[in-house]
Formats: sequence, C-alpha cells, structure tokens
Amino acid sequence: MKRSVSIVLVAFMFAAAILVFVVTKPVSVQASASKTDQDSVPSAVWDSSGQLHRPVGYRRWVFVGAPLTPNGLNNGKASFPEYHHVYVEARNLDVFLKTGLFPEGTVIVKELTRVLDPTFPHGSRTEPSGRGYFNGIYNGLDVTVKDSKKFPETNGWGFFNFGHHPEPYADLPLSVASATRSFAAKTDMTWVQFYPMLRDKQ
Amino acid sequence: MKRSVSIVLVAFMFAAAILVFVVTKPVSVQASASKTDQDSVPSAVWDSSGQLHRPVGYRRWVFVGAPLTPNGLNNGKASFPEYHHVYVEARNLDVFLKTGLFPEGTVIVKELTRVLDPTFPHGSRTEPSGRGYFNGIYNGLDVTVKDSKKFPETNGWGFFNFGHHPEPYADLPLSVASATRSFAAKTDMTWVQFYPMLRDKQ
Repeated sequence: MKRSVSIVLVAFMFAAAILVFVVTKPVSVQASASKTDQDSVPSAVWDSSGQLHRPVGYRRWVFVGAPLTPNGLNNGKASFPEYHHVYVEARNLDVFLKTGLFPEGTVIVKELTRVLDPTFPHGSRTEPSGRGYFNGIYNGLDVTVKDSKKFPETNGWGFFNFGHHPEPYADLPLSVASATRSFAAKTDMTWVQFYPMLRDKQ
Repeated sequence: MKRSVSIVLVAFMFAAAILVFVVTKPVSVQASASKTDQDSVPSAVWDSSGQLHRPVGYRRWVFVGAPLTPNGLNNGKASFPEYHHVYVEARNLDVFLKTGLFPEGTVIVKELTRVLDPTFPHGSRTEPSGRGYFNGIYNGLDVTVKDSKKFPETNGWGFFNFGHHPEPYADLPLSVASATRSFAAKTDMTWVQFYPMLRDKQ
C-alpha cells in the first residue's frame, strides 16, 4: 500500500511538472468520431487556464461496469471503498469498439457510490434479494481524459479528482495526476479488463 | 426463502392466467412522454401473439445501479449471484424524475454479470485497486414492463426472463410472471430504494 501511495505521489508531482507547460489559452479537443452537430461538442472541456471542467450529464453516458472494493474486505483501509460506476460517451465507445483505441478528448468518468448501510463485517447487508451490496449515496468523482499532447509520457491519459465526498462536487479538479503505468493493460484503457463491454469486444 | 418461492410461484400462475386474456393482435404501448419521432418508438414491443420481444440496445440506456448478491455471501445459493445491472430509457426516467411515476410501456432491464473469477470464499478477488468484486461475463437478462392493462393486479408491472446464462439470450421470454407485491416500495418502482438516481430524486 505504501508503494502505491508513493507511485501516486510521484505521478502527481510529475503531473504538476507537466501542467507548467499546459497551454494557457482555451483548448477544445474534438473526438475523431464527430459527425453531427451534437457530436462536435468536445468531450473534454478546458478553460483558458488549462483547467478541466467537471463533466456534466455523465450519468446518462454509457455505463461499462461497477467494480466494488468495500472497506470490509480491505482491513478498513480501501482507497476507494465504494462502488466505482464507470461511464464513457457513446461516440467515444463506438470508436474504441471499432479500433481498440479511444479518440483524443475521450473522457472516462468514475463516480463512487457508497454501499448502502452495511450490517455485516464485510460491508454487506441483507435484503429480500439476498445478502450483498446495494448502492448508497454518490460519494466522489474521478475523471480520466485522453490527451496525448498533455500527457505524452503516460500513455496519453490524465487523471483528475473532483472530490471524494457526497455531492456537490468541485467544479474544477482538486488534484491532477497523470495516469501511472502501474495498472496499464495491453490496451488503450488502463483497466479495460474489468469492463465486459470493452474487454469482450471482437 | 420457501415463502418467497411460493409467492413467486403463485405470481407466476397468476401471470399465466392473465396471459389467457392478453390481446392476440399487435400491441404497441407508447410512452406518454413521447415528443419527437425517436421518442415515439414504443419502449415495449409485443408481437402478434402478445409476446414481449427481447429489448435491444439497453446497454446504452441510463444505468441506475448495480446491486450485488454474491454466492459466497448466500451459502452458495444466491438466487442471482451476479451483479444486477439495471437500465431504463432516458425518456421514461425523465417522466419518473418529474412525476414519481413511470409511463405506460416503460421497460426496466436487469442484466446480470458474473463476478470475475473469485479467489476468496466470499466470492471476491484481489486486484491492484484492492480486494473486491469485478465484472465478469454477462450472464442473464430479466425485463420488467409497466403495462397497467396487462398487469392490473400487480401494480401494473410484469416480469419477463430471457435466460439466466451467458449470451446469446432468448429472443422471446422463457418465463413470464407478474411482479409480486412482496418487495413493493412506496413508489412506482418495486425496488427504487436501491438506486440512488431514483431514490434521491426531489
């Protein structure tokens, strides 16, 4: 765990160094799959100082999976003890399913939701459908952006945190880091192996 | 558990009785929220013999939650040991968020995905992000349809199963039952309490 923290810190410092060189005028990244007027809206929106705006409407993007690493299974010290709801926009997903690569500007959202009021040591509770885990309140927002120019040293992906707490989230990132290579899979997505729609594509 | 099984069986027989009276000519139920051409496509599609067609494209509908009742937490006998990915169409969700009621013809999909290769007794495994549950392969499709005419005795909801196994699923329901009242919440949705987007609406 300490090693993971070190990796994150190093990545964070590295990201900070990168940000010194980030452009200071408005930048809009357009998905290569853009066809219609609606599609031409950039996936990632940056302001004039190079800050990423918090994505909106992501709960209606395409859901790809919900890993769950409850505190009860991690000695009470899970980095993210919640459900990880992961979303990606349909147009960017379509490019990935066709080419195996997400287009520039792709935003991947991970929204946390707490497990609903645990009654067992492992974090689970019992409902009519059985003992298990159920979705509690929203509890945090992490965003990953593909931008090969901004994050050339880390597979082209940057990581942004908008808060690890109940809503409301921050409008601008509370922390910024390049995605580390430590979790990288042999694909364009660092954790594609956990998401059936992405993993099992032909 | 036995009582639950009895309730389901009774509900199933009741549904079969109802189906005798189901119209035998093509029926299309239109969502009351319909405004545009696209919206006018019925949510639920029935064929000439009154059978519900398997929904298509539901993985791009709005995801509302993912309860998880793993076998390892249910003495190896969970009715549904998988993640329950639940989806609803945006136009129907919009009506619910505005009125507290889903419009006629609303289809709610529950797709199961197995947990990824468990290595612990509770069904979990360890990955770089921690010990927990990760999405495995798709493993079943259940569909709930709101149709007050077809299911007047059960809050207007009917339940359809298209298979509890890996893809491909059946094109027509393998079993049909009215939703029982046993799990009913004080809302239009039998299990709204497990889905933050529905539960926490103002």
